[in-house]
Amino acid sequence: MKINGVPYRSIWLNKNAWSADIIDQTRLPHEFVVKTLQSMQDAAEAISTMRVRGAPLIGATAAYGVALAMREDASDSNLQLACETLLATRPTAVNLRWALARIQPDLAETSSGARVERAYALAAEICDEDVVINYDIGRHALTVIRELWQKKPAGSEAFHILTHCNAGWLATVDWGTALSAIYQAWDDGIPVHVWVDETRPRNQGAALTAWELLSHGIPHDVIVDNAGGHLMQHGQVDMCITGTDRTARNGDVCNKIGTYLKALAAHDNGVPFYVALPGPTIDWQMDDGVKGIPIERREALEVTHVSGKNAAGKVDSVQITPDGVSACNYAFDVTPARLVTGLFTERGVCAASEAGLLSLYPEYGDMDK
Amino acid sequence: MKINGVPYRSIWLNKNAWSADIIDQTRLPHEFVVKTLQSMQDAAEAISTMRVRGAPLIGATAAYGVALAMREDASDSNLQLACETLLATRPTAVNLRWALARIQPDLAETSSGARVERAYALAAEICDEDVVINYDIGRHALTVIRELWQKKPAGSEAFHILTHCNAGWLATVDWGTALSAIYQAWDDGIPVHVWVDETRPRNQGAALTAWELLSHGIPHDVIVDNAGGHLMQHGQVDMCITGTDRTARNGDVCNKIGTYLKALAAHDNGVPFYVALPGPTIDWQMDDGVKGIPIERREALEVTHVSGKNAAGKVDSVQITPDGVSACNYAFDVTPARLVTGLFTERGVCAASEAGLLSLYPEYGDMDK
Repeated sequence: MKINGVPYRSIWLNKNAWSADIIDQTRLPHEFVVKTLQSMQDAAEAISTMRVRGAPLIGATAAYGVALAMREDASDSNLQLACETLLATRPTAVNLRWALARIQPDLAETSSGARVERAYALAAEICDEDVVINYDIGRHALTVIRELWQKKPAGSEAFHILTHCNAGWLATVDWGTALSAIYQAWDDGIPVHVWVDETRPRNQGAALTAWELLSHGIPHDVIVDNAGGHLMQHGQVDMCITGTDRTARNGDVCNKIGTYLKALAAHDNGVPFYVALPGPTIDWQMDDGVKGIPIERREALEVTHVSGKNAAGKVDSVQITPDGVSACNYAFDVTPARLVTGLFTERGVCAASEAGLLSLYPEYGDMDK
Repeated sequence: MKINGVPYRSIWLNKNAWSADIIDQTRLPHEFVVKTLQSMQDAAEAISTMRVRGAPLIGATAAYGVALAMREDASDSNLQLACETLLATRPTAVNLRWALARIQPDLAETSSGARVERAYALAAEICDEDVVINYDIGRHALTVIRELWQKKPAGSEAFHILTHCNAGWLATVDWGTALSAIYQAWDDGIPVHVWVDETRPRNQGAALTAWELLSHGIPHDVIVDNAGGHLMQHGQVDMCITGTDRTARNGDVCNKIGTYLKALAAHDNGVPFYVALPGPTIDWQMDDGVKGIPIERREALEVTHVSGKNAAGKVDSVQITPDGVSACNYAFDVTPARLVTGLFTERGVCAASEAGLLSLYPEYGDMDK
């Protein structure tokens, strides 16, 4: 998407045609710094230190990491070493595993003389595919947004969408998932205004979603996570769209902590609540998301401390609680399917239910659960 | 309540028997500083700079401010000047107006020779009355908590109460409202554990409620405002108790932004949701809280910046959003009475409805709405 009028992806081939450039997301939103990855080690470091984050972008970065490794040494042993090193950077990231599982056997069957070229081609292919998936998610979402916008009273000045966390282009190669819908609505001429949940504890909304929208020029307001209920109660939200980390077969949606509270408020006030997701995040083995999806508990420090830019312009961290306090930090929650109006996928829009999902992904209908 | 085993009020007569001591709440939770108010100007400054906050405590501080003024000059003109000066410190504070309206005519009718003694007696009376009201709120709440605790399976290790913002002794002279219930349950031997919503944007939960509980020795965990829904969904909350700034005649409850979201989650999961309030915060003229109570919109800076203690131990503020972002900051929301299990008042426990409130306050039954 655009940064001050210039289109960007979150990762791209450098003009030297061999290294990969990324936006260093650890510096956002206070500094925009492009970092050039010149080796497999650079790629591994970028993933492990979260200079790149978001499942699809991690996969794409790993793909370029393999290509950089092949450029240095296209041997079988180096291919093995590169894949092992990259996989170890974020051991639980599904897309990382998926990307490497696609690349490694392909390159193993390619002669070492052709491996470098093939590795770069695969990395480009993985990036381009992600862009198409996310574009398609937004394209299908646009039909729903346009319909809701057209139902608003004539003379309405804006179409208000509330989103939580960052499901934007920074988490993918381009477009994002939830934000893909918002970008496409905006580009289609719908006067979108976005309520951006700050998304404590890590503030991905206040930092990354706000930065994306500001950079692309889309009207927005950052709000505290407490505010969405009041806004919905008073007719100031036309629709909610969030991303998801994992969608259960029954349509239950696991996403950043706090999503469930917004879905409750949307339901209580008749506000449509949609979730945007690429097909690969559907967990077909998981029959009941609320009961079955394990929720990661992260360190208390994320709750007790907040980082940002101080008056001197430096990034610093401040402690908001008294010394010695106890804190608890669950990172995700699960929104029951009954609160979800529908799902936006790259194959179309469906109900948040097994039947809805199978209508778009019939190939999973007969699988052995 | 106790600070490291020593009982405190939030305001008390200094051992010199004429000045008033307060806990400087602008320094909490990072420093515990007692400040001695030696003049009416000291009292006015403490209120306007929020060294003291919370409606009942502001009223009590103003009462001591008048006493300090009388000590210097017990003339009619100085009485008038003191009341005007103190009233101007926080023009919209209901309790400030109420305390001064009670003191000024009383002292005006007292001979100037007896005014100093009478002024100190009135200040002490206002403080003591507040303590009794809050104690009674907690005493009635305790019957409900005890009943819920006794219904938990034998062998349960803790009774988990979630609270939002700070309705503690720091906002009153002692006990608090919602926290009065928690202190009394704890003192009664119920193994309370408190989930403390941090309460963005001003973090009164993370800063003040956490400090109160820590100081009194009550087990607690600070959580982000996003977390309560997940906890309730998984049986980790036995009860919610919050305070309120204004309760409508129909039982709708206006409280710090985000309260409504927690009430929705409580309702969705069958968790009892109670609100603690002193009778004077009931607005008998307000028939419909959701529709009628105006919601203050405060400055965006509270959303975009967070203050806390930096690594050097100094209180500092950091900006969490990118430069140039737009933010919106509603300070309160209204929880519809249908989501409130009951109200804890100084006269007893009642349903959140006009009939419920009138059962405890029958004198308002015939009033001209």
